[in-house]
Amino acid sequence: MSLYSLDAAIALSSAQEGLLHGHFGGSYANMVGPFGGIIAATLLNGVLTDPECLGQPVAMTVNFAGVVADAEFDVTVQLARATRTTQHWVLALNQEGKTVVTATAMTAQRPEASWQATDLVMPEVPAASQVSRLDTRMYPGWAKNYALHIIDGGLQPGSEPSGATTRLWVRDEPPRPLDFLSLMAISDVFFPRVFVRRQQMMPAGTVSMTTYFHADAESLARQGDRALLGVARANRFHRGFFDQSAELWGADGELLVTTHQMVYFKG
Amino acid sequence: MSLYSLDAAIALSSAQEGLLHGHFGGSYANMVGPFGGIIAATLLNGVLTDPECLGQPVAMTVNFAGVVADAEFDVTVQLARATRTTQHWVLALNQEGKTVVTATAMTAQRPEASWQATDLVMPEVPAASQVSRLDTRMYPGWAKNYALHIIDGGLQPGSEPSGATTRLWVRDEPPRPLDFLSLMAISDVFFPRVFVRRQQMMPAGTVSMTTYFHADAESLARQGDRALLGVARANRFHRGFFDQSAELWGADGELLVTTHQMVYFKG
Repeated sequence: MSLYSLDAAIALSSAQEGLLHGHFGGSYANMVGPFGGIIAATLLNGVLTDPECLGQPVAMTVNFAGVVADAEFDVTVQLARATRTTQHWVLALNQEGKTVVTATAMTAQRPEASWQATDLVMPEVPAASQVSRLDTRMYPGWAKNYALHIIDGGLQPGSEPSGATTRLWVRDEPPRPLDFLSLMAISDVFFPRVFVRRQQMMPAGTVSMTTYFHADAESLARQGDRALLGVARANRFHRGFFDQSAELWGADGELLVTTHQMVYFKG
Repeated sequence: MSLYSLDAAIALSSAQEGLLHGHFGGSYANMVGPFGGIIAATLLNGVLTDPECLGQPVAMTVNFAGVVADAEFDVTVQLARATRTTQHWVLALNQEGKTVVTATAMTAQRPEASWQATDLVMPEVPAASQVSRLDTRMYPGWAKNYALHIIDGGLQPGSEPSGATTRLWVRDEPPRPLDFLSLMAISDVFFPRVFVRRQQMMPAGTVSMTTYFHADAESLARQGDRALLGVARANRFHRGFFDQSAELWGADGELLVTTHQMVYFKG
């Protein structure tokens, strides 16, 4: 058994080929049901533990179609198409016979080398040790599984809004060596941008999340259990939905993930 | 019959419930098979013409799993989950019994009003009429269906690379009133960023594309057949893949679409 709550939270048992079973036990509870990042990591776990899976995740989209309960669930995993080096997966998470999440994922044996460049520039920010750690006692339970050091763009209800951008350091609590599963979960660690933009809470929930993995296994090994730098912002809020985009940077300045969401909000 | 080649290119006939049939006729041919934007628009057409479909598209992800041929195809459309105001769809495009594209889409009856804001700033650029139109004779056939006015970040092989950002005006050719289908297709109009970044061509192809629709039916009506401003950039190129993000702005400065891709490249 792993020492880490993440591993317990995303555990799956194989019922039959292409059908997995799990149980969201509440350790990553959000306002309603489990934290979306844990749901996404559970589905990615279904792909990466599939006997047919070759390679590493490159892209994943998770659609939150209905209310997910902290309860038992089934996951269907289908390898829709494979080439020599790439695989495309289609997944669904079902509770009480109803689909509550749909997902697609793409995995690949990435070429060892190619031309490379990073165009995005990592912001210069204070080290995590110089930023106070968020007191998560007033936050939903999932936040207690992370050490969050918010550099700017936090929630101070009543304060003057100054944009929708948040910069923060984040790592698993207790510290856990980074893998694709924890990286997937951390991709959803940013509060809905509308909370930050308006400095008030309201009903809001991700309807679709897409994550692109730039990290490879070597990137993860280099990162270890150190904190990641996350930067999130919004583009447009309109008629009940907004989109937000974020990046996750490794401690040494490597861009590990770019991730995007469309989020429902009421207000 | 529509006068527009787009409508012919994305036409579907209903074989039975949840199963559609079509034929890519070559009018939007890319280097290999049809232009990805036309494939995406065809799948969105399958959703929007479904008798069960309520509302407008909010988010769509299209995964290019195998080589798509300019040939006949089937599309399966499944309504995975519906709430009172939202619907989640799962689609596949099959050729010769093999899945070549998978997709998910989310549609919604958006609330009439909500708090709104656009955080992204539309760049100040010359009008389309002041920018020379791209001569598409040397480009793949699909480009002939668009009037493209590249402001900066075009392809001039042999020139000194100066980043991966492109800004361009784009509209259907001949001019066609904008709808969600043409907006979906135009979301894929940006050449692979690696071509621009390196000012050279190489094998490259989108593996996954996600589009968020900020436009509603009223936005489309306001836009009419005028050119859209598109801005695209890249984040990281690493071990055979890179991501690119883009925005499409209406002529009056409304943010209509944000769109993201993960792209394979060899070189």
